[in-house]
Amino acid sequence: MAITASIIGSTGYTGEELTKLLIAHSKVEKILLASKSNVDLPIDPKYHKVTDKIYSKYLDYNDNLLFNSDVIFFTTPNGVAQKFTKPFYDKEILIIDLSADFRLKNPNEYKKWYGNKHTQSELLNLSCYGLSEIYKSSIAKSRLIANPGCYATAIQLGLYPLIKNKIIQLSNIVVDAKSGVSGAGRKIAGEYLFCEVNENIRAYAISGHRHYPEMIQTLQPIADEPIDLTFIPHLIPMQRGILATIYANSISNITSNQIKETFLDCYENTKFVRVLKNGETPNTANVVNTNFCDLGIHLIENSKKIIVTSAIDNMVKGAAGQAIQNMNIALGFDESEGLI
Amino acid sequence: MAITASIIGSTGYTGEELTKLLIAHSKVEKILLASKSNVDLPIDPKYHKVTDKIYSKYLDYNDNLLFNSDVIFFTTPNGVAQKFTKPFYDKEILIIDLSADFRLKNPNEYKKWYGNKHTQSELLNLSCYGLSEIYKSSIAKSRLIANPGCYATAIQLGLYPLIKNKIIQLSNIVVDAKSGVSGAGRKIAGEYLFCEVNENIRAYAISGHRHYPEMIQTLQPIADEPIDLTFIPHLIPMQRGILATIYANSISNITSNQIKETFLDCYENTKFVRVLKNGETPNTANVVNTNFCDLGIHLIENSKKIIVTSAIDNMVKGAAGQAIQNMNIALGFDESEGLI
Amino acid sequence: MAITASIIGSTGYTGEELTKLLIAHSKVEKILLASKSNVDLPIDPKYHKVTDKIYSKYLDYNDNLLFNSDVIFFTTPNGVAQKFTKPFYDKEILIIDLSADFRLKNPNEYKKWYGNKHTQSELLNLSCYGLSEIYKSSIAKSRLIANPGCYATAIQLGLYPLIKNKIIQLSNIVVDAKSGVSGAGRKIAGEYLFCEVNENIRAYAISGHRHYPEMIQTLQPIADEPIDLTFIPHLIPMQRGILATIYANSISNITSNQIKETFLDCYENTKFVRVLKNGETPNTANVVNTNFCDLGIHLIENSKKIIVTSAIDNMVKGAAGQAIQNMNIALGFDESEGLI
Amino acid sequence: MAITASIIGSTGYTGEELTKLLIAHSKVEKILLASKSNVDLPIDPKYHKVTDKIYSKYLDYNDNLLFNSDVIFFTTPNGVAQKFTKPFYDKEILIIDLSADFRLKNPNEYKKWYGNKHTQSELLNLSCYGLSEIYKSSIAKSRLIANPGCYATAIQLGLYPLIKNKIIQLSNIVVDAKSGVSGAGRKIAGEYLFCEVNENIRAYAISGHRHYPEMIQTLQPIADEPIDLTFIPHLIPMQRGILATIYANSISNITSNQIKETFLDCYENTKFVRVLKNGETPNTANVVNTNFCDLGIHLIENSKKIIVTSAIDNMVKGAAGQAIQNMNIALGFDESEGLI
Repeated sequence: MAITASIIGSTGYTGEELTKLLIAHSKVEKILLASKSNVDLPIDPKYHKVTDKIYSKYLDYNDNLLFNSDVIFFTTPNGVAQKFTKPFYDKEILIIDLSADFRLKNPNEYKKWYGNKHTQSELLNLSCYGLSEIYKSSIAKSRLIANPGCYATAIQLGLYPLIKNKIIQLSNIVVDAKSGVSGAGRKIAGEYLFCEVNENIRAYAISGHRHYPEMIQTLQPIADEPIDLTFIPHLIPMQRGILATIYANSISNITSNQIKETFLDCYENTKFVRVLKNGETPNTANVVNTNFCDLGIHLIENSKKIIVTSAIDNMVKGAAGQAIQNMNIALGFDESEGLI
Repeated sequence: MAITASIIGSTGYTGEELTKLLIAHSKVEKILLASKSNVDLPIDPKYHKVTDKIYSKYLDYNDNLLFNSDVIFFTTPNGVAQKFTKPFYDKEILIIDLSADFRLKNPNEYKKWYGNKHTQSELLNLSCYGLSEIYKSSIAKSRLIANPGCYATAIQLGLYPLIKNKIIQLSNIVVDAKSGVSGAGRKIAGEYLFCEVNENIRAYAISGHRHYPEMIQTLQPIADEPIDLTFIPHLIPMQRGILATIYANSISNITSNQIKETFLDCYENTKFVRVLKNGETPNTANVVNTNFCDLGIHLIENSKKIIVTSAIDNMVKGAAGQAIQNMNIALGFDESEGLI
Repeated sequence: MAITASIIGSTGYTGEELTKLLIAHSKVEKILLASKSNVDLPIDPKYHKVTDKIYSKYLDYNDNLLFNSDVIFFTTPNGVAQKFTKPFYDKEILIIDLSADFRLKNPNEYKKWYGNKHTQSELLNLSCYGLSEIYKSSIAKSRLIANPGCYATAIQLGLYPLIKNKIIQLSNIVVDAKSGVSGAGRKIAGEYLFCEVNENIRAYAISGHRHYPEMIQTLQPIADEPIDLTFIPHLIPMQRGILATIYANSISNITSNQIKETFLDCYENTKFVRVLKNGETPNTANVVNTNFCDLGIHLIENSKKIIVTSAIDNMVKGAAGQAIQNMNIALGFDESEGLI
Repeated sequence: MAITASIIGSTGYTGEELTKLLIAHSKVEKILLASKSNVDLPIDPKYHKVTDKIYSKYLDYNDNLLFNSDVIFFTTPNGVAQKFTKPFYDKEILIIDLSADFRLKNPNEYKKWYGNKHTQSELLNLSCYGLSEIYKSSIAKSRLIANPGCYATAIQLGLYPLIKNKIIQLSNIVVDAKSGVSGAGRKIAGEYLFCEVNENIRAYAISGHRHYPEMIQTLQPIADEPIDLTFIPHLIPMQRGILATIYANSISNITSNQIKETFLDCYENTKFVRVLKNGETPNTANVVNTNFCDLGIHLIENSKKIIVTSAIDNMVKGAAGQAIQNMNIALGFDESEGLI
C-alpha cells in the first residue's frame, strides 16, 4: 500500500520535520505541500537530489488534490485546522492535527487557554488525543487525531505510570521542564534571536502554560481525584530537546525497584519509551532526531521523593515523529515504520 | 590604602576570574599568583598591556611573600586550603577560601559529603560563612571566610526571606537548578567536551549534591524546624550562569504583594540583590559578568504555590565576585568596590 | 572634568554596549539616552542598582538637553546621523557616529554602497575616520568622528603594517572574516533566529560588503597603487567576536622575524593592539569584552605567504569601545580610560 | 544479499556515526563492534529498542568472527589499521580505513606528515583513495579503500572541476576552512572543553595540516603542474559541519555561467554533490546529518576571482557517510543505500 500524505502549513519547523520524516517513510509515495500563498512554491533546494515524492502546490483547502490524500496533517497555527477539518473528516480522510485545535475536549477550556471560541466544538468529541503509548487502541480507530503538545508528551509519559499505579501522592507534584528553542517554531520575534537565547536561561509562562490543561485532562480521570500539579517551562540555549524533571512524593514503603518495575510493566512492550537502568539519567542528546522518550527513575530514600526525568526531541516525539507514529497506528502500518 | 592580594590556585576558571576582578580593583596594588609548579609561571599573554599588578611566582606555602599579603584567596581543589591556612590565620592575614574546606561547621558532615576527614577541624568554628548579604556583620570581623558554593548562593538568597519570615511551609520545598558548564571548573573530563555538552541537557547528582548541606546549615536554624528540601542540579549548554527555580507552598492567605514586600524589606539596602517587578522573571544573561543576584517572585493564586527564580553568574556572585565582596567588607572598603 | 554624554539610538546592541562602557567611565557624570518614541523611556531594569548616571528622555533632536552635551554618540541606522549632525557640529560639540554616515569621503561611493544620496556631503570632508591607532593625531583635533566598521577595524589593523612597510604584494590579498551574530545588531529577521544560526555557518555578501570601501579608502593611499583585495565575511554561531584571516604574498626574502619587528614597531606603543609571539594565534575569546585587537603573524616558508589573523570584539574595538577610545583621544582623557 | 559489517574502533565519534548508519542500512544484517578491551562491551543503552543487529565482542584481530565479515571498517587512530589490514586483505575482505593510514601513496610523505614510518608500505599502492565522486570506478574494484579526510573531501570536491577544466590559475589558491569540533574526535583535551570552544574561534595548524598532502596528491596530477595552495583550518563553536571557502583567480574571459556549467557537467549525475543556483551559498545546516556536499559558485566580476564555498557534514560525507557510500560502490549496492 502506497499512500499520499498532504501537509497544510509546511513551512514552519514542524512542517519541515514532518516532511523529512515522510520522505523516509517507505509507505508514502507522494507528499503534497499545500500552500495558501498565491503561487506554487518552488521545491526547497534542500530536497534537491533527496526525493521526488514532493509536490508543492498552491491549493484552496477544497481542492480535489487534498481530497485524494490518504492522510492530511495540519501544522498550522492554532485556530486554522478547526476551520478546514470538517469536509475531510466527512470523507473519512485521516486527519492528524499538530496544532492545539482538537486537544481539549471542553470548548470552554479551549476558549480559556487559547483566547478564541472554538468554531467546530462538535468535532471535539470525535477526536482522539494522540498520545500514542496511552491511547493506541483508540488511535487505531480514529480518523481525527489531536497530536499532543511537546511538553505534554514528555510529562505525561513520565507521570502516567506513577498515577495509574497510585505510587505517588496527588498533591505537591512539581514539573520543571526545559526546552530547546525550536519549540517556539519559526516565530520571528526578538526574544528568539540568537543573541537573546544564547548564553541565557529563563523561566516563562509562570502563570500558566497551554500544555497544562491537556495533561490534566488525561491524568485526572486516571487519578480519580484532583491533581495538584505545578508546571514551569524554561527556555534553554539549544535547538532541540525537552527535559522534564518531575518531583512527587511517593506513597509509603514503596521501594526503588518496585517503582522501576511499574515503569517497565507499563512500557516494556512499547516501541519508543525506554526506561533507563538504576542510576542512569537521560540526556536529551540521546533522543534528539529520534522518536524515543527516555525515562530516568529515582527514589530519594530519606525524603521518599520520586524524581522522574523524561527526555524527548520536541520536534520528533513531541511533534512530527509522534504524528507519524499515530499515522502508522491509524493506517495499520508497523508502528515504527519510518521512525528511528 | 593599597593592598597585596595573593591567589593560591590561580590557573582554574575561578582563579582566573578572581585575577580579572582584582586587576580592576582600585585598592589592589599587587596580585601575587602563587604556584606550586617548580618554575615561575610566565605571565599569561592575556594580561599583556592589561596590567602590571601581577606577579607570578613559584612559592612554597610558607614563603615570606605570602606572609606579606593583605589577603590570601584559595581557589584550590577541596582539601588543599585546610592544610595551609593555619599559619596565615595565626598572623591575622585575611583568608578567603573559595573551595568547600571551611563551609561546613560539622566535621562529620564534611567527611560525609567530601569523603575525607577534615584535618583542621578546630578552624571550622573560627570561619565565617561568606554569604555576604546574610552574614555581613560577621564577615566584617572575620579573618577566615568560607566563600559559599555557587548553587548555594543562588538558592539561599531566594529562600532566606521566605523562611525567615515564615511565609512558606517547610515541607515540599523543591529546587530545580540549572547551571552553565564553567561551574565544573577546568576539569578535563569527557563529559565536559563541547560535543557532549552542546545541544544537550541532563540532571546530575540526583542522589545528593555537595551544596545541599551548606544550605541546610544556614536555613534550618532560621526555620527552627526541619526543612524538607529537594535539590536537583542540571547541566545546560552555556558557559556561565545559574538559574534556580524554587517551588514552595505558601502559608495561607498571603498575597503576592506581601511576598514582594518581604523580599524588598530584606534586600532593598543591599548592593547586589535585585528584586524584580511583578511579572518579571530573571534572565541569566542580565547578571552574567556582574555580581548581581536577580530574583523573580511569583504566587500562583489557585495553588498557593510560591515560585522564586534566582539568577546569578556562577563565576562572579557564585564565586570570585562574592569573594571580592567579602574582601571589601572584611577590609572596610566600599562593598561594591571593583564590582559591577 | 566631568562630562555629559548623549546617545541617540540607545536601544540597539551597540547603544547598549556604549551605555555599559560609559557607566564605567570615571569622567562621565551623566548619560542621556535620547529617544524619539513619544514617551520618556523607563530606565531598563538591568541598570537598577548599577548606576544613577542615566537619564532617559523623549527628545527632539533640537532639544536643549542635547546641546548641553559634551559628546553625542549616534548609534542609529545608516542615514540618520547625517540628518541631525550639523547643528551640533556648528556648536562644536564632539560627535561620534557609529553608523556608516561619515566613513566614506566620496559621496558617490556612499550612494553606491548605501543606496541613498548623502544629504550632507559637505560634512564628509570635515569628518575624521576614527581608526584610533592610525589616525590618533587627527582624531585628537576632530569634532566629527566616523567610527569604523567592525570588520574594517580588524582587517585594517592587520593589513596596515604590511602595506605601509611594503612587505606584501598588492595583488592577491585575500581576507576571509568570521563574525559573531551581534554584528547584525538587534535586527529581527528570520536569518538571525537562534535555530537558524546555531550549528550553522555560511558566507554572505559575497558580491560586496559595505566595509570594503572604507578599507580601500584607508589603504590605497598608503599603498600608492591599486590594491587587489578580496573580502568575504562569514556568519558563525557565536555572539561576539570577529576573526579575520588575511592571506598575502610577501615580497621576496623577508623573514618571519622582520615581519614581526614591523608589527612591533607599528603597535608597540599602542594601548590596545597586541602582537602575539611567534607561533601564537589569536582566540577571539581572549579579546571579547575588551578593546584589544590581537594579531597573530605567520610566514609560510615554502610559499612565502604571510598569514595574519586579527581578532577583536565586534561590539567593543569594533564599535562602542573604539568610540570611547576616540572620545578619550578627542577630549584629552587617558586613551584607555573606562576601557579594558 | 545480507552482509556482516565489522567496526574496529567503534567508541569514537566516527565509529558511533558509522554504527548509526549501518543500523539503517537495509543490506546490513549484522554489525560486529570489535573491542580490544578485555571484556565484551555491553551494548550501549542508546541502541536499546533501536536495533538487534549489533554484536559487541572482545576480539583479537585474528578472530574468526572478523574473518567472516563482508566488510571491515577501521575507525582507529592513525597507525593501527596498517598493522592489522594484511590478513583481511589477503582473504579479499573489503577493508575501508577511515584513518589516514592508506591515504598517501608515498611512504615518505606519510612519515613526514604522521611522524612514523609506515609499516606496510607495500599495501599503499594496492589501496584506492575513496573520494567517491572522483574515483568511483576504481573504488568499485578495490578491496582496500582509504577514506579521505574531512577537510580534504570538502575542498577537493570544490577544486576538482576548476582544475580539471583549467578554469583557474594554479598559483594563489587560498582555502580558508572552518570546522565544527567533532572533527577532533572524542579527544579529551583542554582545548576541546565546552568553555574553551564556545563563543570562540581560532585558526590552527597554520604551519601545515595533514589533509594538505592528500589534496595535492589528487589535484597535482590533474593540473599537470605545481599547485600553489594555501590551506588554513579554523575551529568554530559547533558540533558538525565544515565550510571551505576557496579563492582562486579565473583564467581570462570565463563567465559565471560557464563556470556553473562546468560544475553541473561534473556533478549532475552524482548522488551527493549539489551545485547551488546562482546567488545561493551553502549553509552547513542544510547538509548536517546527510551525505551531501553543497557547492556555491561565485565569480567576482571586477577582480575575476572565483569563490567556491563547499559545505559537508564532517562526520557523514567527511567520514562515516562516505565510507558507506564507498562500501555501496565496492559491494555493488545502490550508491545511496542507507544514506540521506
